[in-house]
Amino acid sequence: MGDILSNAAEWVGVGVFALTGALVAARKGMDPFGFALLATVTGIGGGSLRDMLLGEPVFWVGEPTDVLICIGVAALTFLLGRGLETVSRARRVLLWADGMGLAIFAVTGTAKALAAGAHPLAATMLGAMTASFGGIIRDILAGQTPLVLHREIYVTAAFAGAGVYVAMLRMGLPPPAAGLAGLLAGFSLRALAIARDWSLPAFKTTRR
Amino acid sequence: MGDILSNAAEWVGVGVFALTGALVAARKGMDPFGFALLATVTGIGGGSLRDMLLGEPVFWVGEPTDVLICIGVAALTFLLGRGLETVSRARRVLLWADGMGLAIFAVTGTAKALAAGAHPLAATMLGAMTASFGGIIRDILAGQTPLVLHREIYVTAAFAGAGVYVAMLRMGLPPPAAGLAGLLAGFSLRALAIARDWSLPAFKTTRR
Amino acid sequence: MGDILSNAAEWVGVGVFALTGALVAARKGMDPFGFALLATVTGIGGGSLRDMLLGEPVFWVGEPTDVLICIGVAALTFLLGRGLETVSRARRVLLWADGMGLAIFAVTGTAKALAAGAHPLAATMLGAMTASFGGIIRDILAGQTPLVLHREIYVTAAFAGAGVYVAMLRMGLPPPAAGLAGLLAGFSLRALAIARDWSLPAFKTTRR
Repeated sequence: MGDILSNAAEWVGVGVFALTGALVAARKGMDPFGFALLATVTGIGGGSLRDMLLGEPVFWVGEPTDVLICIGVAALTFLLGRGLETVSRARRVLLWADGMGLAIFAVTGTAKALAAGAHPLAATMLGAMTASFGGIIRDILAGQTPLVLHREIYVTAAFAGAGVYVAMLRMGLPPPAAGLAGLLAGFSLRALAIARDWSLPAFKTTRR
Repeated sequence: MGDILSNAAEWVGVGVFALTGALVAARKGMDPFGFALLATVTGIGGGSLRDMLLGEPVFWVGEPTDVLICIGVAALTFLLGRGLETVSRARRVLLWADGMGLAIFAVTGTAKALAAGAHPLAATMLGAMTASFGGIIRDILAGQTPLVLHREIYVTAAFAGAGVYVAMLRMGLPPPAAGLAGLLAGFSLRALAIARDWSLPAFKTTRR
Repeated sequence: MGDILSNAAEWVGVGVFALTGALVAARKGMDPFGFALLATVTGIGGGSLRDMLLGEPVFWVGEPTDVLICIGVAALTFLLGRGLETVSRARRVLLWADGMGLAIFAVTGTAKALAAGAHPLAATMLGAMTASFGGIIRDILAGQTPLVLHREIYVTAAFAGAGVYVAMLRMGLPPPAAGLAGLLAGFSLRALAIARDWSLPAFKTTRR
């Protein structure tokens, strides 16, 4: 039961990140196989890094579901995407989907790291890192500035999701409840940042 | 016998990718050790990612042949490369060598993934991914737009090589014949794209 | 004893690389969590790649020290960094710290690779590669041209550190002495390159 829930969360995370990859492919005017590669790398990139760092079998290698999700999302975006009226609208969808994937992977990354015996601090860092990685590799491959660098709260939301999840577990909450709390913390922080252009105080340099 | 053949194919793939790395180092005016690093990372990058994703020992760590090939190619390119008359000629050589490496790694990547127990669909994706990765990391390190993003058929050729190989195996062909078919499919598609500027229909955006 | 020494060297390497990551975050005007992520990825990136390539448990996953060092360095840089008068001064500190991290990781990377049974040539390459990787990923994430591409001696210093260490071991020196020799070779070569703008003869192209 718990496994089905966590598998379902992972599939949603893979799917929304794949969607962000496909939307970037659309913005760059790529061909169908470019869509498939960028969607797949974005969808499974964060989880692959997580599993390699943990020395665990990489989650998508032994079974076809995750790759199928990515290819399906890429195909649908390519076929239906022509209906998207403006690029700026796609940019908006991309931001929200990316935020949802960020929150999901922050929690599932931290959970898998804890299960593999990682120290809670390392697990939090690993959750934040793998949540950011899919989007980072998408942006690098597409030749655009990584979202992670933007002034808006991004990495902070990933740390919030991972940190709240660990804190709730430590306070004795059952894992699904702690996971939900982490998910809500991460996504709502990111959502507020997108909707209200929130940012944290940044480092000021005397000149650039 | 099969092992020798597949080792030889891997060495050719490592060598041609190393050559593309060395040619980019030449275009960037790097020093000899920069040549060595860029050639090696490009030559062994795709296979290293493949082995790490599969949880297999990374192919070049235990024995010196692959690293020696990369260093040798880098040294020869540095010493003999001054004879290259124009940079645009090097760009042509780079494209063809890159296409050969792409086809070889698409097939050997898929083969190693299948041997490690990967699902055929995951293996095809892994073959396409590792075939593209050497060139992607080369272009990122050298600060240029990844070839993978170009409009010409590139990722498509990697998928074709991997996909034809898997399909031929499923139709009962012996692995060397299936491998040759995959190699020919991948390389000839890429070669036609280079020679005739072929591309697939791309996604149209209403504005950029 | 040897373990404590090599742990201490690794911690210094992680700390100085984390500092270079935090300084780049300062130059980019990032928020505190951006500092934490960039410092951590830079501090532990090279060693993580090394451990994944060797199939060893990744060094920072099981214990919190390395992550704590990175977060501490990031926090101190964010809080005290406002005292840095000019960005160009930070750039100077960054260059020297980066050079020290480069030399440390070249030696510890090679040592860990040899201990894991890598061939000496592969171990040298792996040392040079992991010494360069932290800085490469920092520069890519921050959207600036990798230091590794600069005309100054950089990769060469990494190879010198790794190569001198292997050569001294082969000549029968005890590991700590060989390590010190490698460290000095790598750092002093890089330091001279920084101080005197040294470079190796580079490849000349007929036109750019």
